[in-house]
Amino acid sequence: MKTKRFILQESEIPKQWYNILADMPNKPLPPVNPGTKQPLKAEDLYPVFCEECARQELNTTDRFIDIPEAVLEQYKNYRATPLVRAYGLEEALGTPAHIYFKNESVNPLGSHKLNSAIAQAYYAKQEGTTNITTETGAGQWGAALSYAAKAFGLEAAVYMVKISYEQKPYRRSIMQTFGAQVTASPSMSTKAGRKILTENPTHQGSLGTAISEAVELALNTPHCKYVLGSVLNHVCLHQTVIGLEAEKQMEMAGEYPDTVIACFGGGSNFSGLALPFLRHNILDGKKTRFIAAEPASCPKLTKGEFAYDFGDEAGYTPLLAMYTLGHTFRPANIHAGGLRYHGSGSIVAQLLKDGYIEAVDIEQLDSFKAGVLFARSEGIIPAPESCHAIAATVNEALKCKETGEEKVILFNLSGHGLVDMAAYDRYFSGDLANYNVSDEEIAANLAASGVVSI
Amino acid sequence: MKTKRFILQESEIPKQWYNILADMPNKPLPPVNPGTKQPLKAEDLYPVFCEECARQELNTTDRFIDIPEAVLEQYKNYRATPLVRAYGLEEALGTPAHIYFKNESVNPLGSHKLNSAIAQAYYAKQEGTTNITTETGAGQWGAALSYAAKAFGLEAAVYMVKISYEQKPYRRSIMQTFGAQVTASPSMSTKAGRKILTENPTHQGSLGTAISEAVELALNTPHCKYVLGSVLNHVCLHQTVIGLEAEKQMEMAGEYPDTVIACFGGGSNFSGLALPFLRHNILDGKKTRFIAAEPASCPKLTKGEFAYDFGDEAGYTPLLAMYTLGHTFRPANIHAGGLRYHGSGSIVAQLLKDGYIEAVDIEQLDSFKAGVLFARSEGIIPAPESCHAIAATVNEALKCKETGEEKVILFNLSGHGLVDMAAYDRYFSGDLANYNVSDEEIAANLAASGVVSI
Repeated sequence: MKTKRFILQESEIPKQWYNILADMPNKPLPPVNPGTKQPLKAEDLYPVFCEECARQELNTTDRFIDIPEAVLEQYKNYRATPLVRAYGLEEALGTPAHIYFKNESVNPLGSHKLNSAIAQAYYAKQEGTTNITTETGAGQWGAALSYAAKAFGLEAAVYMVKISYEQKPYRRSIMQTFGAQVTASPSMSTKAGRKILTENPTHQGSLGTAISEAVELALNTPHCKYVLGSVLNHVCLHQTVIGLEAEKQMEMAGEYPDTVIACFGGGSNFSGLALPFLRHNILDGKKTRFIAAEPASCPKLTKGEFAYDFGDEAGYTPLLAMYTLGHTFRPANIHAGGLRYHGSGSIVAQLLKDGYIEAVDIEQLDSFKAGVLFARSEGIIPAPESCHAIAATVNEALKCKETGEEKVILFNLSGHGLVDMAAYDRYFSGDLANYNVSDEEIAANLAASGVVSI
Repeated sequence: MKTKRFILQESEIPKQWYNILADMPNKPLPPVNPGTKQPLKAEDLYPVFCEECARQELNTTDRFIDIPEAVLEQYKNYRATPLVRAYGLEEALGTPAHIYFKNESVNPLGSHKLNSAIAQAYYAKQEGTTNITTETGAGQWGAALSYAAKAFGLEAAVYMVKISYEQKPYRRSIMQTFGAQVTASPSMSTKAGRKILTENPTHQGSLGTAISEAVELALNTPHCKYVLGSVLNHVCLHQTVIGLEAEKQMEMAGEYPDTVIACFGGGSNFSGLALPFLRHNILDGKKTRFIAAEPASCPKLTKGEFAYDFGDEAGYTPLLAMYTLGHTFRPANIHAGGLRYHGSGSIVAQLLKDGYIEAVDIEQLDSFKAGVLFARSEGIIPAPESCHAIAATVNEALKCKETGEEKVILFNLSGHGLVDMAAYDRYFSGDLANYNVSDEEIAANLAASGVVSI
């Protein structure tokens, strides 16, 4: 009988994360101070971030970084996750491609986000922090962070993007079950939120807005640090546990990926799966393609500008080198809340600029169509975010059908959609639309955001 | 480092189910024809059930029954499930007990129900059936059956208990994503439904009612068979894959359970975990305790009568030997929809009568309290049904704390609660109550149901 799921024992969970900063031919541009335009040192980030995370953010020398014992203990609650050969999807498509997916949806919180939430909560606790605060889009990161905070005895305050707060009330309930305080963002509880709401009372929120509120809370609260679920280098670092496991599992399957695909919001699940494989392109001359699948409604990688921009809407963060649509960009209310972010993170931005990765835009209806096909052929209802990776995979697999090539495609199933069924309901009732952004809108928003090109 | 999750490879998934009918000292009483009172033969069940399931129902000779290859292929989508040492829960309770749980919640449909859904859909397809129909309470069984039907190319029609249909709209969405037709029960689409609704227009439904509607549809539709998610012997048989895996995994952990606990609705997850271990009590003199945790609002095992009764509200089924509250019993609208059933299934009934198993009643508020404790200490939000098993486990573990005994407790985490967050919301808002049933109510209902004592 053919093997479907490639399973690692607990003892095979990686003991180190992979830090691609050590291997990148061109290092990503550093974050800079918006006033002085000077590159930031780790110490400059300490007021907002955990100190160890700030150091990891700028560590360009250590290729591997030890995973703390207490973090590994928590990983053992759900890792290693299975690598799965998608025989059902292959058959449904009639493709000669070999399709594999890394199944992060078996995580009890529903997505890959826990991998970094645990690490950041651990460091916060180690450094004497009592409270942590963050933003969340679809609620996957907020749910993960809420559990991680509880596991290490911290209080968590989560700003949840208002449109998701309303669309996904059960993700809010999940956070509350773990004892977190959840606020719809923009809110009247912060200066940033009040400014946005007084200018635009019907503002539906975005990750950029929620970040502003959380950062403001951290800056004004003693023993409170801000934690982020994507974008930053140290988050990508923590997520590499995904790709390091997948590497071992692809070896068990006796194959190596020709193409690696993940959906793209800020870069956490994409980086987590892709970077460990990408190092072999850099170091060992492998020719694997890496495809980031972003929503057509938020196309920073394909249509954004490589520029220094703020990570949040209010402009509280340092300036980050990213592909961006402008930090004031308001993404359409698509159901893949985790992908509604204006920028890309510095590592991925540099890799895209240097030609190591590619990006494709996926329209909302195509993403759900692919998601339903996957559900019916593999038995797992994917998160709306993950549907973008599946749609890109389907496109690649259908190209193989045309050419007859037996390519090996690996994608990241970043989460399940069981808490997103309202979105599927709307899809089936014909109530969902595509939202494409014109070049003119993007240019106008970049100008309005005052983005500094590189 | 201590091992937390005990993991089997795909090759270690059991290839046979365990049929306790072959080993029981007193065989369960057979189903009888309500008119003639004669025991039924397998052929008598063919008009409603798949023929192979009917034969398995009455097979008292084969101790092990081969799992068909195509069923094993589907099991590989999610099996083997992990056995987990609940270190977090042990620590939260301060108990010397060693607590393990079999984690059926990693199943992509959210519960153990898929184990039998796949088998029944497979047999239906083999026998030339094109349509299958069933009932569902909380929606876990209906979701599993919907996927299984899709996997084998069958059309599925699901009658969902009305209260759950309203409380858990997303479970309905899950079924629809897999292409099933879902109807709130009681409905006006069947004679049984119309009778109930005209007598009581506000009837909220029960598993007994929904079974009547599904059986009626099967009887009146060509090439359509009825499939059931619990109660019957062949369902318990299919679920033994849980306990057979757990046996191997407990061996990996170097322990053997002193106590095995599962929640109890009709008996599927309880039997699945318990029966493979119980055979060692029968055959090898082991002294393991087996505890069925039922809701105090539906206490058939502790307060019901051992009697012949119908499996459904309308009286379409054969008479089954069961502990029952009477087939017209209307359980309170507790959130553990999968446990709202009046009877127990013949295997468990006989084992309870013969002293092999015990039962305890759990109140709704205690079940959620235990569920929240578990979520916060293990990171998994349990299904409201599973919360009953956790509450019973907590009680046993606290007894160990008093006595200092290091007992080994194994319970079944039959499903996760991510689609049940509305119930948790109501629990946190103080909006849930306990519903206890008095002896007088039970006696009156048994009389009204015309139950025949044994």
